[in-house]
Amino acid sequence: MEFELKILGSASATPFLNRHHTAQVLTVGNQSYLIDCGEGTQRRLVEYKVRHQRLHTIFISHLHGDHFFGLFGLLSTMHLQGRTEPVQLFGPAGLDEVLTTQFRHSHTQLSFDLQFTAVDPEQHALVYEDRLLTVHTLPMRHRIPCCGYLFREKPKRRHLDKARLPEGLSPAQLSRLAQGNDVVDEHGTVLVSNQAVTTAPNHSRSYAYCSDTLYTESLVPLVHDVDLLYHEATFLDDMRERAATTHHSTARQAGLFAQKARARRLLIGHFSSRYRDLEPLLREAQTVFEPVELATEGKTVSIPE
Amino acid sequence: MEFELKILGSASATPFLNRHHTAQVLTVGNQSYLIDCGEGTQRRLVEYKVRHQRLHTIFISHLHGDHFFGLFGLLSTMHLQGRTEPVQLFGPAGLDEVLTTQFRHSHTQLSFDLQFTAVDPEQHALVYEDRLLTVHTLPMRHRIPCCGYLFREKPKRRHLDKARLPEGLSPAQLSRLAQGNDVVDEHGTVLVSNQAVTTAPNHSRSYAYCSDTLYTESLVPLVHDVDLLYHEATFLDDMRERAATTHHSTARQAGLFAQKARARRLLIGHFSSRYRDLEPLLREAQTVFEPVELATEGKTVSIPE
Repeated sequence: MEFELKILGSASATPFLNRHHTAQVLTVGNQSYLIDCGEGTQRRLVEYKVRHQRLHTIFISHLHGDHFFGLFGLLSTMHLQGRTEPVQLFGPAGLDEVLTTQFRHSHTQLSFDLQFTAVDPEQHALVYEDRLLTVHTLPMRHRIPCCGYLFREKPKRRHLDKARLPEGLSPAQLSRLAQGNDVVDEHGTVLVSNQAVTTAPNHSRSYAYCSDTLYTESLVPLVHDVDLLYHEATFLDDMRERAATTHHSTARQAGLFAQKARARRLLIGHFSSRYRDLEPLLREAQTVFEPVELATEGKTVSIPE
Repeated sequence: MEFELKILGSASATPFLNRHHTAQVLTVGNQSYLIDCGEGTQRRLVEYKVRHQRLHTIFISHLHGDHFFGLFGLLSTMHLQGRTEPVQLFGPAGLDEVLTTQFRHSHTQLSFDLQFTAVDPEQHALVYEDRLLTVHTLPMRHRIPCCGYLFREKPKRRHLDKARLPEGLSPAQLSRLAQGNDVVDEHGTVLVSNQAVTTAPNHSRSYAYCSDTLYTESLVPLVHDVDLLYHEATFLDDMRERAATTHHSTARQAGLFAQKARARRLLIGHFSSRYRDLEPLLREAQTVFEPVELATEGKTVSIPE
């Protein structure tokens, strides 16, 4: 099953002609999850052929414009296209008021149900789950309430070792084994031991989105062993004081964070428009953590099963 | 002096990959006036090299997203760039609430003074003037309160006919003559007749922006003899019933309106995304009014002095 992140934009606040504001799409199986929605995101979705029909869930980190000004237009277009399927929207309190104020003045009664859940950006909590994955909030440290998100596939079914399976098990009993249970009789006596006839399930893949934030070590345990980590890297380390003042991180700090979290791979983004050439940011992060890439627009990162 | 309209976008509600939502810049002398501000307008300004520093005044027609969703991002960028010069913003009531709700939740205290004036979309009234021009509202008929704008250069100074000017006039007396007054003595006796020594001033150029609206003949007298008329033409005339239902116009109606208003030139825009090829819209308007052009993105129309 696909587990793929697509970068639609990764520019920080001041836009740059050929770099767009933050937006990402995580696709797991046949579901797509939108993470942040900078101005123009609806165009990026068309450009990269991400169909609205696959989008049911949107996660917004915080209410700085470069992370959500595209939401008005995206929701309006879904409405104008007559969407009827609901959209679940997660973000800090206030996002609903900004949207409903606009809908009220444009006399818009959305054609679909927009289900808003206010997340608490100070908590690490389960806020969403479906049959494929869970999403937990990650408390960022930024100038305004800001929330990262950890996406993790649900535990998968164990593999049945056909050579060791006894004959004559019912579909229900096979399903119990795949879910990690023993097959027992009505008295609880083990008839078939799970351990004996199954092998470990496929790894449950995970993606952590950490933006915008100060370098914050207390977050490390929350994303330990994550397969893919996105960490903002607005500045080079020679500007770490400016990063601290504006509650952002440097490329070196992003690398350090990935190293401490024992992430498998790191993506850095949210680049300041002062950097025309992004290679120095990449090289700086690499001095600390080697498997790092730039979250440039259009990049796709797949995590194999 | 320059009097030039630049089209930044002219797509109607559902966006199209290579067509942007409505935004225009009218440049008169060294001043630029932004008219509507669809999503992504700040990028179009950079692309077409319209400098923020020349923009002091923004006119928004109505609160459908395709006409103002770019305003959040444009104002944010001006703020992030440390602008200190004030911006005057004109639009229907409610625009201020939409903006201030967003600024409140993003903890934004703009670096410049945003001076909002709520216009009354049912009135034809003077809402703005500076040393170069006046701006009057034009009452559109749309599904929500919607306001067109008429830009008109102020009356210009009369030309002094040097061959016929008596010797020895003071600069103050010459200025009186250029303003259309006679030179008189302290008893009011005419010493130099304006009529005798001046000729007519240059024409005061005008531009009328009419979008979004039903075809509305009662508007015609308000824009009579306008040099350049922009009139929306969302549909072809075979869809005039749909145009009526959605409070839009057809290309034929735009041509008819221009003809009745005795406009010098017509621009049509706000094209429905159903029309991949815009030529049929142009040809349809031309059957009624010959000097018409498509308001395609990037088009510049100059009105000579």
